[in-house]
Order: sequence, then C-alpha cells, then structure tokens
Amino acid sequence: MNFRSDNNAGVAPEILQALVSEAGRQDDSYGRDRQTASLNQAWSEVFEIQVQVIPVVSGTAANSLALSLLSPPHGRVFCHADAHVLVDEANAPGFFQPGLALSPLPGKDGKIEPDALRRALDSAPWGSINCSQPAALSLTQATEWGAVYDLDHLETLARTARDRDLFVHMDGARLANAIVRLNCTPAEATWRRGIDVLSLGATKNGCLLAEAVIVFGDRPVSHLWYKAKQAGHVASKLRFLSAQLLAYAKDGLWLELASRANRAAAMLASELSRIEEVALACEPQANMVFARLGPELSDRLRRRGVAFHAWDAVGTARFVTSFETDAATVGDLAATIRSCVAEPGS
Amino acid sequence: MNFRSDNNAGVAPEILQALVSEAGRQDDSYGRDRQTASLNQAWSEVFEIQVQVIPVVSGTAANSLALSLLSPPHGRVFCHADAHVLVDEANAPGFFQPGLALSPLPGKDGKIEPDALRRALDSAPWGSINCSQPAALSLTQATEWGAVYDLDHLETLARTARDRDLFVHMDGARLANAIVRLNCTPAEATWRRGIDVLSLGATKNGCLLAEAVIVFGDRPVSHLWYKAKQAGHVASKLRFLSAQLLAYAKDGLWLELASRANRAAAMLASELSRIEEVALACEPQANMVFARLGPELSDRLRRRGVAFHAWDAVGTARFVTSFETDAATVGDLAATIRSCVAEPGS
Amino acid sequence: MNFRSDNNAGVAPEILQALVSEAGRQDDSYGRDRQTASLNQAWSEVFEIQVQVIPVVSGTAANSLALSLLSPPHGRVFCHADAHVLVDEANAPGFFQPGLALSPLPGKDGKIEPDALRRALDSAPWGSINCSQPAALSLTQATEWGAVYDLDHLETLARTARDRDLFVHMDGARLANAIVRLNCTPAEATWRRGIDVLSLGATKNGCLLAEAVIVFGDRPVSHLWYKAKQAGHVASKLRFLSAQLLAYAKDGLWLELASRANRAAAMLASELSRIEEVALACEPQANMVFARLGPELSDRLRRRGVAFHAWDAVGTARFVTSFETDAATVGDLAATIRSCVAEPGS
Amino acid sequence: MNFRSDNNAGVAPEILQALVSEAGRQDDSYGRDRQTASLNQAWSEVFEIQVQVIPVVSGTAANSLALSLLSPPHGRVFCHADAHVLVDEANAPGFFQPGLALSPLPGKDGKIEPDALRRALDSAPWGSINCSQPAALSLTQATEWGAVYDLDHLETLARTARDRDLFVHMDGARLANAIVRLNCTPAEATWRRGIDVLSLGATKNGCLLAEAVIVFGDRPVSHLWYKAKQAGHVASKLRFLSAQLLAYAKDGLWLELASRANRAAAMLASELSRIEEVALACEPQANMVFARLGPELSDRLRRRGVAFHAWDAVGTARFVTSFETDAATVGDLAATIRSCVAEPGS
Repeated sequence: MNFRSDNNAGVAPEILQALVSEAGRQDDSYGRDRQTASLNQAWSEVFEIQVQVIPVVSGTAANSLALSLLSPPHGRVFCHADAHVLVDEANAPGFFQPGLALSPLPGKDGKIEPDALRRALDSAPWGSINCSQPAALSLTQATEWGAVYDLDHLETLARTARDRDLFVHMDGARLANAIVRLNCTPAEATWRRGIDVLSLGATKNGCLLAEAVIVFGDRPVSHLWYKAKQAGHVASKLRFLSAQLLAYAKDGLWLELASRANRAAAMLASELSRIEEVALACEPQANMVFARLGPELSDRLRRRGVAFHAWDAVGTARFVTSFETDAATVGDLAATIRSCVAEPGS
Repeated sequence: MNFRSDNNAGVAPEILQALVSEAGRQDDSYGRDRQTASLNQAWSEVFEIQVQVIPVVSGTAANSLALSLLSPPHGRVFCHADAHVLVDEANAPGFFQPGLALSPLPGKDGKIEPDALRRALDSAPWGSINCSQPAALSLTQATEWGAVYDLDHLETLARTARDRDLFVHMDGARLANAIVRLNCTPAEATWRRGIDVLSLGATKNGCLLAEAVIVFGDRPVSHLWYKAKQAGHVASKLRFLSAQLLAYAKDGLWLELASRANRAAAMLASELSRIEEVALACEPQANMVFARLGPELSDRLRRRGVAFHAWDAVGTARFVTSFETDAATVGDLAATIRSCVAEPGS
Repeated sequence: MNFRSDNNAGVAPEILQALVSEAGRQDDSYGRDRQTASLNQAWSEVFEIQVQVIPVVSGTAANSLALSLLSPPHGRVFCHADAHVLVDEANAPGFFQPGLALSPLPGKDGKIEPDALRRALDSAPWGSINCSQPAALSLTQATEWGAVYDLDHLETLARTARDRDLFVHMDGARLANAIVRLNCTPAEATWRRGIDVLSLGATKNGCLLAEAVIVFGDRPVSHLWYKAKQAGHVASKLRFLSAQLLAYAKDGLWLELASRANRAAAMLASELSRIEEVALACEPQANMVFARLGPELSDRLRRRGVAFHAWDAVGTARFVTSFETDAATVGDLAATIRSCVAEPGS
Repeated sequence: MNFRSDNNAGVAPEILQALVSEAGRQDDSYGRDRQTASLNQAWSEVFEIQVQVIPVVSGTAANSLALSLLSPPHGRVFCHADAHVLVDEANAPGFFQPGLALSPLPGKDGKIEPDALRRALDSAPWGSINCSQPAALSLTQATEWGAVYDLDHLETLARTARDRDLFVHMDGARLANAIVRLNCTPAEATWRRGIDVLSLGATKNGCLLAEAVIVFGDRPVSHLWYKAKQAGHVASKLRFLSAQLLAYAKDGLWLELASRANRAAAMLASELSRIEEVALACEPQANMVFARLGPELSDRLRRRGVAFHAWDAVGTARFVTSFETDAATVGDLAATIRSCVAEPGS
C-alpha cells in the first residue's frame, strides 16, 4: 500500500488517452503546435479571465519561474515556514533569480497568519540599500499540511500584500483539491481573491508529467518564456505537456480527479478517528491525513509494507490519497493500522 | 508532409508501450523509483563502461547541465559556429553556469577543424585574470548539417582538447544516427575516442519527451543532480522519463529507429540527385538532407503544403527524416518537388 | 558627535601616508604590481601560516567570495540570525553563488550556540535531492552585538562543523577588535581554532577602502580570483587596495588601531554604567556599546546632534567607537546623555 | 619607462588632495554621505541633463552593471570584436546578468561599422524562443585602438540601434580623451547622439580608484543600485569614490588631464613618424600609439627597460600615455627606439 505521496500515483486514463492520441500525430516543435496554441484559451475558460499558460515538467520549475517574474534579484519573497518552495526545492528560486531571498512566516497547519505577514511587512527594511526588498507573497493552497485556506483568509493575505505593492503567488500543487473542498469556482479561488500568478499542479493529480505557470491577466510574459527556455523547459515536443494540460482542463477532469482523492482522505480520516490510539494532527481538508502514530506504531506499519512519509521526528505520519486511491485500499490501510495497534507491545 | 524536423515526429510504439505500462504502476518519486534505479546499468551495458545517467526533458537542459559540469563560471567552451548550443539555446549554458563563455570555431558541414581548435588554443590568453579560460570542447555528432565526424577526426579533436586539459562534451542529439552511419559500437563513438560527457538525444528519435546527460566513468555527479534539481528538472514522476530511456536502450531500439531515419534520408537524397534543378548542399550522412532549392522553388513547395526548414536566406532547404518517415512519404516529397520544378515559372 | 558606525570614521594617518606614497609611483595593473605581490607574505607572517589574500573593496564582497568558495550552488550556509551576511548584505551570497541558501541559528549577543548548530546538523536533510545540503558555517568575530567568542567556543563550533564536513568561515569585519580583547595571536584566533577562510575587515578600522579574503593554507584559489574578476573586483589599480592592507599589517598597526577603539568603548561603557537610567544591553567586549535608552531618551539625544544607530524598536541604541574616538568625545557623549536624562520629561 | 597602460599611472594631485581632505572627515556610510549626495548634481551640470551616477571601482563593474540594466537575461549585446567588454572582462557581463550573450561586430580600428550592425540586426532571429534577442549596442569611445568615433558615426550607430529598440551603451573608459579630440561638449559626445548609459572612466585618467555608471535622464535606477550592492560594490566608505569623482568633474579637471595625455601621444606619434623603420598601425586620435615594430625591435626595446603592451603576434606595440606622461619621457622613448633601430642586427 502506497500512501507516501500523490506523486507516487499512476496516470488517469483520460490523460493517458490524450498522450496516446497525440503520439500518433506530427506537429511543430517548441510550443508552435496546435495543443500549446489552445492552452491559453482552454484555461481562460476555466478561470473566466484571460490567462497565459507556460507548461513545465515540475512544480519546482513552475514555482521558480513564477517567483522570478514577481521578484527582482534583490527581492524578498515571504512564504510559510513549511512551504515547499522554501524547504523542498533546494533553493531553486535562488537559482532562477540569483540573489532572491525567501523569508519564512509562521502559522498553524501551513497557513500563513495575516498578522505575521503584517508584522513582517511593518518591520521590513524598506528602501535600505543593504537589505533585500519585499517583493512577493507565496502561499500554498492546499497547504503542505493538507489544510485549505478559506476565501476570506486568502483575500486578507492578498490584500495585505498588495497594499504594500507585493505580488501574490499561489503554489497550487494541490489547488484542485482545495477548490473541491471550498466548493467554489476556480476564479473565486484565485485571481478574484488577489492571486497574480499560479503554479498549477497536475502531475500529482493524474497527469504523467505536467505542471503549469498560469499568469492571470495580460501582464507581458515573454520574459517568462525566455527564462523557461534558458532553464531548459521549452522542450521540443512541448505539445505532450500541453496535451495533458488540455485533457486535464476538459469537462472539469481536474476537479473530478481531486474530488476522488479528497473523498478517500475523508474516508481514511473517518476510519482513523475511530481508532483510539491514533490522533489526527489536524483536520484533513484536502487529500492528506496526518496521524500521530508515534515511532513504534510507525515502525510496525512500515514493516507491514505500508509506504508513508514520516513527517517529523516524533512519529507523525502523513498519508496522501490520490485520484486512484479506492475505498478498498483505504479500508486495508485502516485494518492494517488497527492490527498494528493490537499487536503485543515491544 | 512534414520534413521540418525529427522533433515534429510522433512516438515509437515501443516507447509509448513502456509509458502505458508504467502509467499503471505506482512508485516512489524524484528518481527513487525502479526505472530510474535501472538507468545506469542499462546504459552502462550499451556503452561497455560504467556510466551515470541524468534524465531530462530537453536537449538544452542536457547540454547546459553537461557544460556546467565541465566548465567553471570563468570557463570558455569551444564549439562549432553553427552549434545548437551556441545558436539555438538562447544562451542557456550561460544561465546554468553564470559567466560561462562560448566561442565559435569554423569548419565545413558543422564539423570543427582540428587546426582551428589548435589555433584557438595556441592563441588563448592562458592564465590572464582578465580573460575566460579554455575549459571544454563541445562537438555535435551528427552535426547540425547532418554530417558525421569519422572516428579519427573525433579522436584528433578530443586529444587536442585533452592535451590542454580541456574536457570534451558531445551534443549527441542525433548520436544514434551517427552510430548507424559509422557502423561502430556506442563505446567507439564516444568515450573510447575521448568523450567525457554526452548529451544523449532521444526525443527526436522516437521518445515522447526524454533526453539524458551521460557521464562516462565514475566522476562524482551529485553536483549535477543538484543543478538539475535547482533548474527544475528532477520531476516528481521522473520515472516516466526513465521508462522511456530504458525502452529506448532495450534490444538496440534506439539504433533501429535511427537506421530507419537514415534510410529515409538516403532515399530522399537519391531521389533529389536525379532532379537536375536541385543541388545537395552537402552529402547526407545521417537523417538530414540539405538541398539548394532557391527562394522560388522553396515558395512553391511550401504552397503545396510541404513543411521544411529554410536553412538560409538563399533558399537552402533542410529536410529531416525520422523513424516514422516511410518510403511512400519520401516518394511523395520527391514527386512534389519534381512537380514544382516543372511548374511554369513566375 | 558620530557614534553611528566605525565605518563613519576617517582614515588612519599611516594608511593615508601609504596611499600618498603609492600615488607617486607607477606600476602594473590588475594585481601584477609590487604591493599585491607582497600581500601573501605580509599576512602569512601575521598569521604564522601560508595564507592567500584577495583584496576587495567591501565586506559584502569579501563574505560573498569566501562563501562562494566554501559552498556549492546547492549548499546551505549556517550563520547567526543577526549575522551581517544574512541581514545586511541584500543576499549578495546568493548572487555570487546562485542557489546558495543561508540558514539562521539562534544565540545570545550574536554568538551561535554550539547546541543550536548541532541540532541543525542533526536534523538536516542530508542527501535529499530536494534540499540544500549543509556546506559551511559562517560566524562573526567580534559579533554584530560587539561580543567576542572565546577561543573554546570558537573551537567547539568549528569542530562541530568540520565533523560533518562543513567548512568554517569567519566574518572578521572586526576581527582586530576581537583579537585585542582575547589578547591572543591572530593564528590562535583563526586557523588554529578551525577557521578555513576569513573575511578580514580593514575599512572600519582605519583604512580608506580595503577588505580582504584570507584563505588559510594552500587551497587553490584561482577560482576565487576569477570570481572576483567576474564580479568586477579586480580593479586596474588594485595596488591601492594592497598598499592599504600592507600598511595595515605593518608593525601591528591593525591591532593598535583596534585597541584604541576598544578602549574608547570600555570608557563609554564605564561612563554609562554610572547613569542609573541607562542599562547596557550586553557587556561590551569590542568597540560597540548597546544601551537601552528607550525611545524618548533616544529622541532627545538625537535632537542634540548625536548620531547613533537605533538597534531595535524599543529604543536600544548602538554606539560604535573607532580608532579615532578620543577620550574627550566619549566624555562629551556621556555628558550629553546625562543632560538628556536630566531634562524635564515630556 | 612605462607606456604599458594609462592604468599604470599614479594619481593626479587634485584627486589625491580630495581624498586627503575627505580622510580627515567623518560621514555616513553606504552612499548616505555628502559627497555621494552631490554626485548627481555635479555630473548633471557637466552633461547638461539630469544624470544618475553609480560609483564603482572598476570598468568591468561599470560595464557589467550598465549592460545588466539594458539587457534582460535572454538579451544579446552587440559590440566590437575587440571590445574590452568582450575580450578583457572574463565575461563579467554574463555573471552580472546570467544568460546575457555578447556578439562581436567587425570594423577598422575598433570602430563598429554601421553596415555590420545593420546586417546583424537584419539577420537576427527576432522573436524566436530558441535565440537570445537583440537588446543593446555597446561601443567604446575612444576605442581599444585609440581611435575616436566622430559624432556622425556615433549618431548613425545609435539611431540604427534605437530604430530596432536596442539601448545604447558607451564604454567610456577613455571618454575624456575622445571629447578632447572631438573638441565638443560632453553632452554632444553622449546622450545628444543617442547614448543611454555611459561607463565613465576615471581611474586611467588620474583617479586612484574610481569609475562610474552614468545613466542619462530619469530612468529608474534603484535596480542598478541593488545590483551594485549584491555584487559588493556599495562600499561602506563609498564617499571616497564619490570624492574622487567630484574632484574629477570640478573645473573640467577630467578634460584637462585627458588633454595632457593626448598631447603626449600626439608628440610620440610625431616623433615615431620620423623613424623610417617604424610604421604607425593607425592614426593616434586619443592617448594610444600603435607602432609596427616587429618582434626583434620589440625585444630590443623591452630589454632596454621600456614597458609596453605587445598588441599582437607580429610585433605591433601599444604605447599608452597618461596625464603624467611629460615631454621628456616621450623624448626618451623616441630616443631609445631610435637607438634600438640603429643597433647592429642580430
């Protein structure tokens, strides 16, 4: 049983079919193809506003490109202390934009506290030649803790940032899961609440390999395309990334896939809540369940062949569900945990 | 009819099948999967030496990563004046390794003349603090003109470079086509003749999206992996790149695909040589045919719906064949050209 | 009265004289001159070991060059949360070595706690492709709080770092003041306790414009010189930086100048300790005195024309003395503070 | 006798006096001082337009900062094939702006031919995602060959560039010498003919260590200041650079110093023209004389202790005069050459 990450999952049939179809065609390279030409329109319809889409192969590339657009080399980007962009991307943003600085902000469950942002901005060394200058806010939706910002929280953060001329970036590696949870439109979840640029996740949610930078509005993005080129992300057969992103948008597939993952996580949380020895570390709002198993129970579970991520040193386990996690597998995991709990102690 | 580039082609069935199979599996992310774990071994067998493989999505990424390994920031990399790395990658090498300089060398058909390399090295400002220092030689096999270095030429260049402590990089975007032409082993075509690091092309030759940096021997490559990570190339589902590269290696598929492309090019060259009004710009040795059509004939051909690359301002046309270019299509192209030639002049 | 910073001071007569003498000579450029040729020898004698000296014009350049030598692009450098390199250099280290990450460690008075370093290293994501890898420790001597690491503290930190293969960098913007306080040899204060590379401050301590990177031992430094060149620091008349650094080393001038600054600070601390309303924030061990004046007293003092640095939001004032701060000026400052204290309240 | 370069010269008395005066004062750091505050005004008067001045310590820093302002990372900067920025700065521009590309243009005596620029722009791959995009023209006045662009030539180049939306940069390492030769105003020599940003040389022409980026008009330059900071060029005692640049501007000192150097060069050229065995390589228009001595005569001269630069492999010697080259020294050089010529052959 693999609950390590949604990026351990396979590929959704609709996505695979799009790739197989495209594989049988010939078309121009480096983004001058039919699929890439349709991307902006397809996602503009989803977001109910003109958007510009740059397809890439990793969330790290998407985040770094986005931040390089929003911050100059001497800029400072604020993000949560647990943000993927800060702790899991080997400082790629500082490679894409040499000199860029990242600053952690606190907050429960991976959500940035508006007050913490305000304090950071109030005490920032504005205008000092010796100090990086506040340039952007980056927030993750859903968060690295599987929590979902509600729309007011989002808007408060974005307004606080914009009031000080900061741009707002959303790391939407799991945006689809958040939208499903919020039960709102993609527009409401993003630009209507003040997001300027989005890293749209797709790989974790059923694609084979595809992420995208989505720029809301008509801000010039040619610099972004050239940065993507210089970082080696304008692949010759870019159309195979675009084909995935088109299928992903079509008929709401991306939200349908996410809703399956969310349902599996809710089911798992429900199961676990009935096991007295296991406490949930936070309310699962998307497709991740954090359970305080403790080191010993964690070990037992791992010995039974269950793959999951050890979130911290005290035995918090992260279980991630995906579009292909079915009820039976969730049931198996719960049963295995119950069995481990019942196992005679060491 | 599309003869614009081999990167306009579709995907070989064996590669597609490998992706479909892998899509039905789950596995760990960021290269900790079974497929990626097998890469080094699979290609070590192909090359008859220990190699280390870093899979990426573009030739630009492969070349830039390779050069960042072989040259310090103050290094100078010598390459042909028509080298892809110099003219078609928007100076990505200078982005991956800020400060790196590229220097063009002359030579017919995209092949660097050994004497030109020697002169450049003899007159280099060795040791001057004011000048970039010679660090590496980068050569393209097959060249951008569809020519193939013979093995002695290759060895002479490599020895000339290594005698002055330069590393040798091969841009092997079309290495398979060159090996087929040379009818030698992959080992003979590369490290046995002095190549240190190879950019192995696969996308143009039947893969969906996959290239690789191949480092010969046991030079430490962890820096290269981290550079790949910082440039956003360590995708979470990296296994889908690896799966392609494994299928590509298996049972000599890569060479079989290239031999089809080469045969189609030879056939096209043979057809064109029988058309009096069309001269070949150089002998086609791999999968590209350069024909001097002149501007008018070029225009007519384009109006007939033939896609090809206008190589220069005087009407030289580049026709590229791929693994899926069949005899019928080559025949159609030749017939269309003949028909255009016969068309009453403007 | 200017107690804002020692970099507000003038130039020591011996340094100025060296410049005037050199100004009357002609010599070769870009470091090929007599003065620069003597630098290594002069400072090797001071440090009782072979050293290599790269002269630059700012501490930011010295620190960034040093760190670019000690950390790869994917490296992480640990430093104090108040370190100049982290908070006052606009992330220059991330510009000199794109991708490099800085991590703050806690500790009183600007001194890194060995336990904090150990915990950071124990919990570092060693070997994870997704995370910057620990590469170096950077500590400031004397610290940004005017405190001085004792030699055992220094050695413990350095050993902790080196045990995990980290290099150790010292930001010695005020190293001379620390050595005077410690009453030890320069060798004891640095490489004998595990320092690999030093940023040697000189501008704050009597030079016109001169700092240096000092590399202990015979580690190859040509990459460092070229990085300096690429960053525009190999000035054509580099000899005027070297001339300052030679005069600074000669006959212990650097320590003599620092001892004057330290004496002035001690005198000031002694004076302030007699004013009941003013508490010292920490023991002054070098040439800085931190006094808790509170906002109101700070304002009064500033209105009397005293220049000083407002260290925090609650009215801690930083008074810095330099080689040219004489007893009379210290007396004047103390008298002015007493007068402000006595002033009828608002 | 030292005719190697004007950067081998000493310091003009007026500049030295300015430094000595400033050394006796205290003032704020990092450019918040009186001298730096006066820079913009002083040079605005010289250039008869609002300018913004960023003082640095090397021409390499000035050129690289200027180009980083005028070209994005994917930009291409055109310059002469012999331009200092291309051949003598170790690709510092590519370090300051990672990814930036430099392209050589031909032309006699270091002057770019307008037709060569036109052809380069006509054939540039405008809009191709795979290619660096033309961004700026950089020209050197006086050129590396000691030649001076006349104003019409300058204007033609600048207009050609601006018509294609390129910015125009002037490397004015020896601008003063060019202005003296042209006998025009500084305004005429620069922005009135289309120059956007100037690297103003001062070190070679009597300063101790000082160059400047001068931006004409009110283009925002805060990015430039932060780039300077991140590259370590905002020195704490920046006022000592500014003090030099103020003295340099005052009462036309910079032009007076340059006129002395030009006169010495003219005198030398006149002397050499009378020696039958020595041909001038080009007409000396500024402060450099290029003489075709041949290898043997070059050797003899060097053995007599004359320092000069061997410009090429066939014995062209470069003699550079400076503000402190007096008539007697020129006479000595001429006499020594005559004596070498008369020496019995080997």
